[in-house]
Amino acid sequence: MSAAVLCIGTEITRGEIVNTNATWLCDTLTSLGFEVTEIASIDDDRPRLIEALLRMSLVHEVIACTGGLGPTTDDLTTESAGLAAGLPLVRDPATIATIQQRFRKFGRTLVASNLKQADFPSGATILPNAAGTAPGFCMQLGRALVFFFPGVPVELKRIWQDHVEARLKALAPRCIFQVRLRTFGQPESTVGQMLDGVEQQHPGVTIGYRASFPEIEVKVLARGVDLDDARIRAEAAANVVRNRLGSIIYAEGSVTLVGAVAAALRARGATLALAESCTGGLVAHMLTSEPASDYLLGAAVTYSNEIKTALLGVPAESLQEHGAVSREVAIAMATGAQRTMGASHAIAITGIAGPTGGTPEKPLGLVHWAVAHPGGVVARERVFVGDRGRIQRMAAFAALDLLRRIATGSDQ
Amino acid sequence: MSAAVLCIGTEITRGEIVNTNATWLCDTLTSLGFEVTEIASIDDDRPRLIEALLRMSLVHEVIACTGGLGPTTDDLTTESAGLAAGLPLVRDPATIATIQQRFRKFGRTLVASNLKQADFPSGATILPNAAGTAPGFCMQLGRALVFFFPGVPVELKRIWQDHVEARLKALAPRCIFQVRLRTFGQPESTVGQMLDGVEQQHPGVTIGYRASFPEIEVKVLARGVDLDDARIRAEAAANVVRNRLGSIIYAEGSVTLVGAVAAALRARGATLALAESCTGGLVAHMLTSEPASDYLLGAAVTYSNEIKTALLGVPAESLQEHGAVSREVAIAMATGAQRTMGASHAIAITGIAGPTGGTPEKPLGLVHWAVAHPGGVVARERVFVGDRGRIQRMAAFAALDLLRRIATGSDQ
Repeated sequence: MSAAVLCIGTEITRGEIVNTNATWLCDTLTSLGFEVTEIASIDDDRPRLIEALLRMSLVHEVIACTGGLGPTTDDLTTESAGLAAGLPLVRDPATIATIQQRFRKFGRTLVASNLKQADFPSGATILPNAAGTAPGFCMQLGRALVFFFPGVPVELKRIWQDHVEARLKALAPRCIFQVRLRTFGQPESTVGQMLDGVEQQHPGVTIGYRASFPEIEVKVLARGVDLDDARIRAEAAANVVRNRLGSIIYAEGSVTLVGAVAAALRARGATLALAESCTGGLVAHMLTSEPASDYLLGAAVTYSNEIKTALLGVPAESLQEHGAVSREVAIAMATGAQRTMGASHAIAITGIAGPTGGTPEKPLGLVHWAVAHPGGVVARERVFVGDRGRIQRMAAFAALDLLRRIATGSDQ
Repeated sequence: MSAAVLCIGTEITRGEIVNTNATWLCDTLTSLGFEVTEIASIDDDRPRLIEALLRMSLVHEVIACTGGLGPTTDDLTTESAGLAAGLPLVRDPATIATIQQRFRKFGRTLVASNLKQADFPSGATILPNAAGTAPGFCMQLGRALVFFFPGVPVELKRIWQDHVEARLKALAPRCIFQVRLRTFGQPESTVGQMLDGVEQQHPGVTIGYRASFPEIEVKVLARGVDLDDARIRAEAAANVVRNRLGSIIYAEGSVTLVGAVAAALRARGATLALAESCTGGLVAHMLTSEPASDYLLGAAVTYSNEIKTALLGVPAESLQEHGAVSREVAIAMATGAQRTMGASHAIAITGIAGPTGGTPEKPLGLVHWAVAHPGGVVARERVFVGDRGRIQRMAAFAALDLLRRIATGSDQ
């Protein structure tokens, strides 16, 4: 079933807020089995709102509409919905009572414009709002069932939960299944080529890609006559994808690279220390975005040579002889972090993230990284391309991926 | 002039990514003086893409279109633009050469699908991409000048900067001037309250807010009969705003809090060391997103008590007596980092970011932070509300803002 999201508000079209409501609604509708093919955001303008409602109601079966239900003069959604459907607005006494009660409770004074929020197109189903003043509503328009929500995320979600989710679940076709495979180490074009022909060999299966730099997620989506049929089709294709991509798949579903690393370390009771130079704390920040105190002991971000020596015991001679960006120093940083912090595993990264600092021998983007583990130390190097942020991100992912491969014993 | 944004990609309509490109484009177009009245996002579907392009090209003068320029089979934008305009695709030899060069440079193998990125609708202006493989392009369609960009934010912004901004500036009505004031420390509703009545006192001036957690940007936008008139109106209102908001304004224009801190430290030849516990390297990561090696010596991310002592010399007795999350330990971490790394200034942060670890005496969200400077040490504490990421972010900003106030000698 085709679905769409319509978001109303000049704050969106002027770029003043990021439209997270649209993302949430699309994700939720997709999970229920709807095919969301369109999101429209328009400014607070009556003719444009009516035009969008009419146009979208010809195409989609379900439309989720947010915003413009407030009390001010630029809140035009209810009025426009009535005009689009050719229905008069009717004031709802039960809603007036609820609004009055709410205002008394919070000691606020009711003004005339607040009563506007009790107006609904004649015949619409009112969707009470337990988290705020403005109720939502629902009505048929063209071929579409249209749900209207306030723009405040917490109110939208509350109304959805209380009055919409069950209704849409009953309506949704349950014949879609998706497998998500997360990869790191190859660009999107190469991953695409590695999967050449898989779609053709598996009817009903679509292979999609989502690049969230530097990761590529491969989505194997199948449609079937029912959910079981879809699942069987998706899994058959996913198995081919797993075989072809091998160890560049670091996890499935919503597990992140950080999650995969954390799980591998936890599984073997390992502890981790970090020594970061050019990544400047990015690896530490990535790991500590989720609780990490059970395996992560600490990190030393050592920008200057003196501090590489002071905090990690990197020999001054090594820095002088090979330079801070070298295999030798990466190894000394990793073993130094492992030793100083008493960790079983350690990651070290040293490189030239730019925008300046490159030389003919050591170009911009050159990064050395090393992982110290109970059985020894492994070092790698590469010249990454891009701006400072990309080089830092590639280096952080590469080092985490090396640790993942070592900790899981997977093919390096 | 009417403008619109069109974003292409099933990852958007399925709710897999938040569409920050749309927000950035709308904000940028609005700042140039365009009236953005519509954002459309559609899935990777040829007929729907063609329909959206044709429909929007009847309404708007400028359309910025992102996504679908990649090498895979679900990248349909170029092809659809050609079909919408009735123009054949032509392969551009110069682009092929650039792509080949890029692949050689990075040691990657060019595959047939990559050459697709050198195809453009006949007569389109190619917009070279200095940050990636896929160039953008620009063509007339209906009444609209349509710009096509890759969906990768850094590539979109680079092409915009290199080839589009100047062109649109020349096209835009030159009677708008905007002053941007960046604040930290008060919620949007309080900032709004502090500026009550300013719009009414200044005809032609609109005050807008952009919340990018935890910062609030105040945009003072004026329209006038010409650019000078608009500038005078905007500056008059901005002066009132500056007076009312005082020292919660940390910078103007596009200067970030990190930029303001870095500038203050550089101005006095200061050096900085960091000691992070609950923020887990976030402050280090924020500072090193831009070149920082001239003032930032290093950071110790000390998750465990042992490492607070080993790397920063925090007395074990202090940890035992007051606990790791305490004013005493924050001060010992700051002075320890200052001493161990030989820095003039140091920041320390210790707290409970959650989701677990709170107690009745030390609730979830409690954070102590301290700044050591040549004249002494200042400590602060607060209970922040929200999830782990929000608490970490609030704590990092609060500590950076304290350092900014100390380093600039502004009112604390």
